[in-house]
Amino acid sequence: MTYFNQANNTQQVKQKVCIVGSGNWGSTIAKIIGLNVLKYTDFDPKVNMWVFEENINGEKLTDIINTKHENVKYLPGIQLPENVVAIPDLKEAAKDATLLVFVVPHQFIKNCCDQLKGQISPNTKAISLIKGVQVDVNGIKLTSEYITNALGVEVNVLSGANIASEIALEKFCETTIGYRNRASGELFARIFHTPYFLVNIVPDVEGVEICGALKNVVAIAAGVVDGLKLGDNTKAAIIRIGLAEMMKFAKLFLKGVQNETFFESCGVADLITTCAGGRNRKVAEAYVVTGKSFEQLEKEMLNGQKLQGTLTSQEVYDFLKRQNLNSEFPLFTRTYQICYEGLAPQKLLTGLDGNSAVNNSQHKTPTPLSPSL
Amino acid sequence: MTYFNQANNTQQVKQKVCIVGSGNWGSTIAKIIGLNVLKYTDFDPKVNMWVFEENINGEKLTDIINTKHENVKYLPGIQLPENVVAIPDLKEAAKDATLLVFVVPHQFIKNCCDQLKGQISPNTKAISLIKGVQVDVNGIKLTSEYITNALGVEVNVLSGANIASEIALEKFCETTIGYRNRASGELFARIFHTPYFLVNIVPDVEGVEICGALKNVVAIAAGVVDGLKLGDNTKAAIIRIGLAEMMKFAKLFLKGVQNETFFESCGVADLITTCAGGRNRKVAEAYVVTGKSFEQLEKEMLNGQKLQGTLTSQEVYDFLKRQNLNSEFPLFTRTYQICYEGLAPQKLLTGLDGNSAVNNSQHKTPTPLSPSL
Repeated sequence: MTYFNQANNTQQVKQKVCIVGSGNWGSTIAKIIGLNVLKYTDFDPKVNMWVFEENINGEKLTDIINTKHENVKYLPGIQLPENVVAIPDLKEAAKDATLLVFVVPHQFIKNCCDQLKGQISPNTKAISLIKGVQVDVNGIKLTSEYITNALGVEVNVLSGANIASEIALEKFCETTIGYRNRASGELFARIFHTPYFLVNIVPDVEGVEICGALKNVVAIAAGVVDGLKLGDNTKAAIIRIGLAEMMKFAKLFLKGVQNETFFESCGVADLITTCAGGRNRKVAEAYVVTGKSFEQLEKEMLNGQKLQGTLTSQEVYDFLKRQNLNSEFPLFTRTYQICYEGLAPQKLLTGLDGNSAVNNSQHKTPTPLSPSL
Repeated sequence: MTYFNQANNTQQVKQKVCIVGSGNWGSTIAKIIGLNVLKYTDFDPKVNMWVFEENINGEKLTDIINTKHENVKYLPGIQLPENVVAIPDLKEAAKDATLLVFVVPHQFIKNCCDQLKGQISPNTKAISLIKGVQVDVNGIKLTSEYITNALGVEVNVLSGANIASEIALEKFCETTIGYRNRASGELFARIFHTPYFLVNIVPDVEGVEICGALKNVVAIAAGVVDGLKLGDNTKAAIIRIGLAEMMKFAKLFLKGVQNETFFESCGVADLITTCAGGRNRKVAEAYVVTGKSFEQLEKEMLNGQKLQGTLTSQEVYDFLKRQNLNSEFPLFTRTYQICYEGLAPQKLLTGLDGNSAVNNSQHKTPTPLSPSL
């Protein structure tokens, strides 16, 4: 593969990357970005990685990373490029960065932004790899929007069917960057793209970001179908209806969302993966099979992790209820009712045809689920 | 569910349905149509079903169907409505029909059309449930087009993630009707739609029909990924890239094809099902795991059935080669090369990034796989 010839751009200030975060996903991304920047003359070869300092058997995690070039705690067994430098102070790590890559757990983003406030040039471009859209009765709160408001910088997003541990082993997959302007999309694509991690870019930050939240609701529904042992056909139908409700929700409540985004890795591919494996699917299946409560199964099966799908289904339900729109999203609504109101799992499949051609003929104002109707 | 109130249309000639075919899928559809027409005053309650006469333990199959109301050979155990009448003579069965439902194996359609030629009113509307698009070096031959040319009637199509035996048991799924005009789409939706078999209609006959052929090529690729044990992420990426190549192929070579069609049951849902189960996926997985030839595996695993995906990959490859376009469809091309040229299965995943944002930047005429690029 060949890359941009930067021979004519030697006067440019070099791009400098800071990775904010160093967990499983952050360390995987550090491996990719570290190797990629070495190929470009317009990038500073040193990549800073902010590491939340921890003590590992008497050694500092940053020291281990900077000498062994391995994140022994969060990505053991994977060699990191030597030009990735672990730094425990966030302000120092982000100093002079032109590109910020946010890849911390959702609950840490506020603290990170608080530290960085006033320290970042407004010309800095950021990208968020953070999953964790919040929907409350007042609206949808995107992480990208939060960072933009906090730091006054342009924020792009990256999301896809991406399991960190598989990508760290260089197993093939794709991802999607939603960009604010095409030049930023192409710039970030250069530091993320590899022959085993293919980047597509789309002009739709909001669409890319919302997919990663709503997919978990559909995964609960898919798990219910698995628990009911209804077979591949029914499950494919639920995934498709779920995808259609995701699109409809995103287009109704967020500006600029495009149908095409849902064909990307962040859309259909991530949904397929999440409905094939994934903890939301697994726990929902167990809910149907065992009859135990979601709370109990969460404790028994998730080893301290939380279920995202049930919570998001509640947030979405409450948000839709305020606008009297639950009936427009029958799959999301049934999923919520199964999780929180004791609706029988079999009822998931009822009332999903409110938007069909037959029924539409009688509505004065059909609100089709199928984009083409 | 309520239906059209036909009170104002009592002067109309009644619609009369003839189902041409009575195999597993045809008999399943006969159950659905037989029950549906009874709900409408503008339909003749009698539904003719053409049955290729066979002798079953000394009894005629048509006699068994008309007395026991069960197709004991092709759909045993399922009760057919008594208003479905089996008729062994095709011309007699189709006489006076206003709606023809073609649901025979692909190889029988020529003979059926030969018999019906000159017997059918040009006002008759047809719908084809037949899978079996042929791609040769001269072009793409759609079954719907063949029927239109042979009989001079309007032909719509129905395709989806539909396994007959599951639908006969009333397991929930969806399907897609591609229509020539909206009134026809709605008319056919009325006879197919049930609460467990949801019909969406789209103005895209060609798109709906081509999906059913190309999905089998993608299923071969998905089976290869399963054989290589690359995990859910890689498989989801292959399904997504396959869907994108299906769209690109259809839009490039057929008129009027719409992106939205690929979001329907005939598109993404049927593809998911086919890549989850299905014989193409299964045999391709065995090809990687056992190292046996496709021919041998076909004999060992398919009990006399033929693999569609390998054959279609060859047809598509030859068609694209003639136009020097193989490189535009890397997944289809790699799949063909694995099946017919001994390409190592691992090579499936190489060269798939020809359309990425990074590489596109260098092309003068990028030909994106992603609809939004």
